[in-house]
Amino acid sequence: MGERALIELARRICVKGPKVEVGIGDDAAAIDIDGRYLVVTTDMLVASQHFPTAATAEQMGAKAVVANLSDLAAMGAEPLGLVFSVGLPRQLKVEFVKRMIRTMDATARKYGAYVVGGDLDESEEIIIAGAAFGVARKGRLLTRSGARPGDIIAVTGSLGAASAGLRILLEKLPSGGYEELVRAQLEPIARVREGIALAKCGHVTAAIDVTDGLASNLWQISRMSGVKLILDLKRVPVHPLVEEFAERRGLDAGEFALFGGEDFELLFTARPEGWRGIRWALKRMDTSATAIGRVERGRGVYIEKDGKLEELPDRGYEHFRRA
Amino acid sequence: MGERALIELARRICVKGPKVEVGIGDDAAAIDIDGRYLVVTTDMLVASQHFPTAATAEQMGAKAVVANLSDLAAMGAEPLGLVFSVGLPRQLKVEFVKRMIRTMDATARKYGAYVVGGDLDESEEIIIAGAAFGVARKGRLLTRSGARPGDIIAVTGSLGAASAGLRILLEKLPSGGYEELVRAQLEPIARVREGIALAKCGHVTAAIDVTDGLASNLWQISRMSGVKLILDLKRVPVHPLVEEFAERRGLDAGEFALFGGEDFELLFTARPEGWRGIRWALKRMDTSATAIGRVERGRGVYIEKDGKLEELPDRGYEHFRRA
Repeated sequence: MGERALIELARRICVKGPKVEVGIGDDAAAIDIDGRYLVVTTDMLVASQHFPTAATAEQMGAKAVVANLSDLAAMGAEPLGLVFSVGLPRQLKVEFVKRMIRTMDATARKYGAYVVGGDLDESEEIIIAGAAFGVARKGRLLTRSGARPGDIIAVTGSLGAASAGLRILLEKLPSGGYEELVRAQLEPIARVREGIALAKCGHVTAAIDVTDGLASNLWQISRMSGVKLILDLKRVPVHPLVEEFAERRGLDAGEFALFGGEDFELLFTARPEGWRGIRWALKRMDTSATAIGRVERGRGVYIEKDGKLEELPDRGYEHFRRA
Repeated sequence: MGERALIELARRICVKGPKVEVGIGDDAAAIDIDGRYLVVTTDMLVASQHFPTAATAEQMGAKAVVANLSDLAAMGAEPLGLVFSVGLPRQLKVEFVKRMIRTMDATARKYGAYVVGGDLDESEEIIIAGAAFGVARKGRLLTRSGARPGDIIAVTGSLGAASAGLRILLEKLPSGGYEELVRAQLEPIARVREGIALAKCGHVTAAIDVTDGLASNLWQISRMSGVKLILDLKRVPVHPLVEEFAERRGLDAGEFALFGGEDFELLFTARPEGWRGIRWALKRMDTSATAIGRVERGRGVYIEKDGKLEELPDRGYEHFRRA
């Protein structure tokens, strides 16, 4: 049973409390606390699964913070703090732990959040389980389930860099000229300010962070919103270095952009009348946004090819990593 | 470097945010959110470290919830919800996971909280990293640092059962007649209502949950409050079955009560004038409370023996388990 099926199992089993506005199955949970939402998420990184062997203490610490804050960003929440339960092998040097904690602290503060607590245990391999919490105003919460027919589909920044960087690391390819791709994998950025801005503008109907890969994340919005998503393949903003890297290696750049994942960009749907304002608000933060498709009545995720609709495979990062 | 030294390291490294009332180093963190405190904690259970091999899916799920809620109880906070990052070995049966999640849900709800989110990953052994969050009113937050000279020291319930139960399980002793001790180890109870009542009564100055063992937890209050604690050994409420078990096996019941840990009782200090009210409030919940010592000016934890003070060793559960 895959992760998604198990999460769906948990969603069916667990009773949703009366104050729980959003429970299991979205980027984060939202609980009503007197007029606003407390937004909470958890994300675990297991060394053997999530980090290339090249990853440093600093990169592990930073990524653990970013992965959690990115989930808050996808809800449009303002982050307050994080707690970490960390499992460490007995033989690990104290210096390693120090460097990891220092980076966690610095990274959290870069996003206006603080590391406020933790638990430390012995474990076979390095495990960093984080939980992040923040607040969102009522009416300003972004979920995966609000996309409506007529909306446009859009994404911040560009895609494919993190997974191309992973490929370089896993296959030990020369990284000369592609340092930016490697950095995208090891030192990702969470779109926290962008998420808050999208929630504030009022025209965004659904959002998710691109962690599993564009295709897989589109499928999640489609399923949770009960709509059909049509992707305009040629408008997907592939990172320019990914194009170059793929061409030189005889690979398909689109594979990275569609199925690569871990870019931590925000994928969202919005009412068309809000699009100008959204682009303007993001531009003020030096963040680009690209319209990449449209929402229709129906189910599923499709690409338009020669006037015909072709279903986009629902496969993501997990598949990509094992390939 | 032990867990406590690493937590102290993290406390020194991490900047305490302006809204953070209580940061790293207490049972939970408290963050000011418009007039009240959001209280957050995290606790990780690693199968090989925290569960006897006899532990079932239900017991693992329940203990993960209780360990986290107990930290909120020690702050006097009202729990709202929990999130869990769970690492599972690939070969684990889905049925096991189902049973674990069902018990997590049921246990959380027993305490008025809900499981609102999670992350699932593959790992070598079962790992359950939970985070619990709740709220506390201003002026009603219990910390480890408020004990003052003149206070009495008290504890809820009785001590030693969980560690005696662990001994029975680890040494595969016959459990006939001692089922309650085994249950105390595998299915502990969090003193959530009691914590809220203690916070409400206004006379409690410090609190901590007994997870490391009475001695170790007394030392933590002493250090964080900057006071001397004097324990009246003969008043420590040892669980009656522990007395019987120890006598029959030629063991020292006091060892379990002082150094055993994982009882999840609340150890607290209070102004003497509040003691009657505290006992009465707890009695209404069918929970006993016993005065076990006094707070004085100075440093350290002592027991009084023949009119002389003898320092109580600062060793706890970790030591006990490895012994």
